[in-house]
Amino acid sequence: MEMIYILDLLGVFVFAISGTLSASNKQFDLFGAMFTAFITALGGGTIRDLVLGCTPVIWATDMTYLYIITAAVALTFLFKDYIMGLKKTLFLFDTIGIGVFTIIGMQKSLALGFNPVISIMMGVASAVMGGVLRDTFVNDIPLIFRKEIYATACIVGALLFLLLSFLNVNADASLLLTIVLIISIRLIAIKFKLRLPVITSRQP
Amino acid sequence: MEMIYILDLLGVFVFAISGTLSASNKQFDLFGAMFTAFITALGGGTIRDLVLGCTPVIWATDMTYLYIITAAVALTFLFKDYIMGLKKTLFLFDTIGIGVFTIIGMQKSLALGFNPVISIMMGVASAVMGGVLRDTFVNDIPLIFRKEIYATACIVGALLFLLLSFLNVNADASLLLTIVLIISIRLIAIKFKLRLPVITSRQP
Amino acid sequence: MEMIYILDLLGVFVFAISGTLSASNKQFDLFGAMFTAFITALGGGTIRDLVLGCTPVIWATDMTYLYIITAAVALTFLFKDYIMGLKKTLFLFDTIGIGVFTIIGMQKSLALGFNPVISIMMGVASAVMGGVLRDTFVNDIPLIFRKEIYATACIVGALLFLLLSFLNVNADASLLLTIVLIISIRLIAIKFKLRLPVITSRQP
Repeated sequence: MEMIYILDLLGVFVFAISGTLSASNKQFDLFGAMFTAFITALGGGTIRDLVLGCTPVIWATDMTYLYIITAAVALTFLFKDYIMGLKKTLFLFDTIGIGVFTIIGMQKSLALGFNPVISIMMGVASAVMGGVLRDTFVNDIPLIFRKEIYATACIVGALLFLLLSFLNVNADASLLLTIVLIISIRLIAIKFKLRLPVITSRQP
Repeated sequence: MEMIYILDLLGVFVFAISGTLSASNKQFDLFGAMFTAFITALGGGTIRDLVLGCTPVIWATDMTYLYIITAAVALTFLFKDYIMGLKKTLFLFDTIGIGVFTIIGMQKSLALGFNPVISIMMGVASAVMGGVLRDTFVNDIPLIFRKEIYATACIVGALLFLLLSFLNVNADASLLLTIVLIISIRLIAIKFKLRLPVITSRQP
Repeated sequence: MEMIYILDLLGVFVFAISGTLSASNKQFDLFGAMFTAFITALGGGTIRDLVLGCTPVIWATDMTYLYIITAAVALTFLFKDYIMGLKKTLFLFDTIGIGVFTIIGMQKSLALGFNPVISIMMGVASAVMGGVLRDTFVNDIPLIFRKEIYATACIVGALLFLLLSFLNVNADASLLLTIVLIISIRLIAIKFKLRLPVITSRQP
């Protein structure tokens, strides 16, 4: 499927920008920025591939990923202020990214014969582990653990994609529907300030 | 060996509770709690399997682990105050957990033909890496690096188990003796406030 | 090549000392120091091997690495003040270490058929990931992301080594020339306070 590959590269590109911006906030130099961009964009997929036993990992054999990340770092380096102003566009692309990463991770796991629950989990891990590793390496608490509905949107999207596959819906159509659903969930969550419950003590 | 599997699940359950409590202290939401519980319970075994080249990792093919962790998170979410009161029980189960994880990790490594020193190391890694990763992701310094005798208890237990194996003692009996030894070491360490030496400067 | 193995062990030894000193600064106990030394010395090579699919990792089958690290921790424990005084020697050995780790990582990747760009990346990862993991586990921001020219020296060294290989220069001579180049770059960078550019906002 050609479309999913293009969207995958788009996701990698936006995740790399997000990593570069994090690095920039911490005053990292160009190497630190490149490292953080790389971890953010490819960390999730790498962990998925390691756990499933799919080595060497994909970016070690398809150089396109590395070129895309290098381009993202260079562009952020040159046009940081302009890119920072594109909040809405970045949000949109980021959400497309997590949607595509979820689906790719899930498809890969299903194709390898893992059951649907593990496959959804691997899909979500592909989507969120990059951001978790980014925050851990720049020494922040991972945002996703307390942010608005993010992983949840991936999980719901993964369930829809799985359902559409069982119904033999065309793959490109399933992909688009799933991404639209994930974007909708995130927009609704932000608009209504929805978040998952926090475990708290009932004691005062 | 049936008993070791049951104790393994018990260990996973208690480690998952400990991860959920950590997540709760940091105000993580339900997804963050599930993530932290998972890393705490299965992080050590996952790293061991990756390093030894045993992929896919065990929890990707045996769903029981995922169910146990989900149950631990749900119970902690519902009954946090009650569970927090069970300090002694949690300590006991946690110690059983590290004992069992150590033995499983060591047995697996030995069975794969690794030498005893590496096998002990892999056993200890199985037991302690989950907690190290938990603390790293919630952005704390890993407790185990400065806490009372913890890894040391695992190492001594591993040595006993190895000795009993060479003496052809029945596996279940070895398992019980090892766990009793590890629990005893930890209790004695806490009672007498024993800890490993710290590397310090002699200069003022 | 015998010489590269000896230099590799020297690198492991110095990296283990650096890990032990980090652990000591954070008041870790002996186990914490051993863990940190191990991660610092072998973390980079381990990640490289996992990503390339070369498991079990090298230190699980060659016990020499573990002995060297144990010796480094013990010596640092006993003679910390003396070792702290050897700043220049440690700097020299550390630079030899990153040079050798870069070359070993690159050679291994090339031998496995990966392309030169990925191989250089794997070389650099072997050299720097140990330090990144060390800083992450002791809960600091990885130094290398903002420090003087460090990874850059590895990259330039890797390029030279690659060039010399294509020119069929003798392997030991290439190794020496590369290490001399890396040491020179670091010395010059420190002398002239060179560092990579930081991504900053142009807004006030």
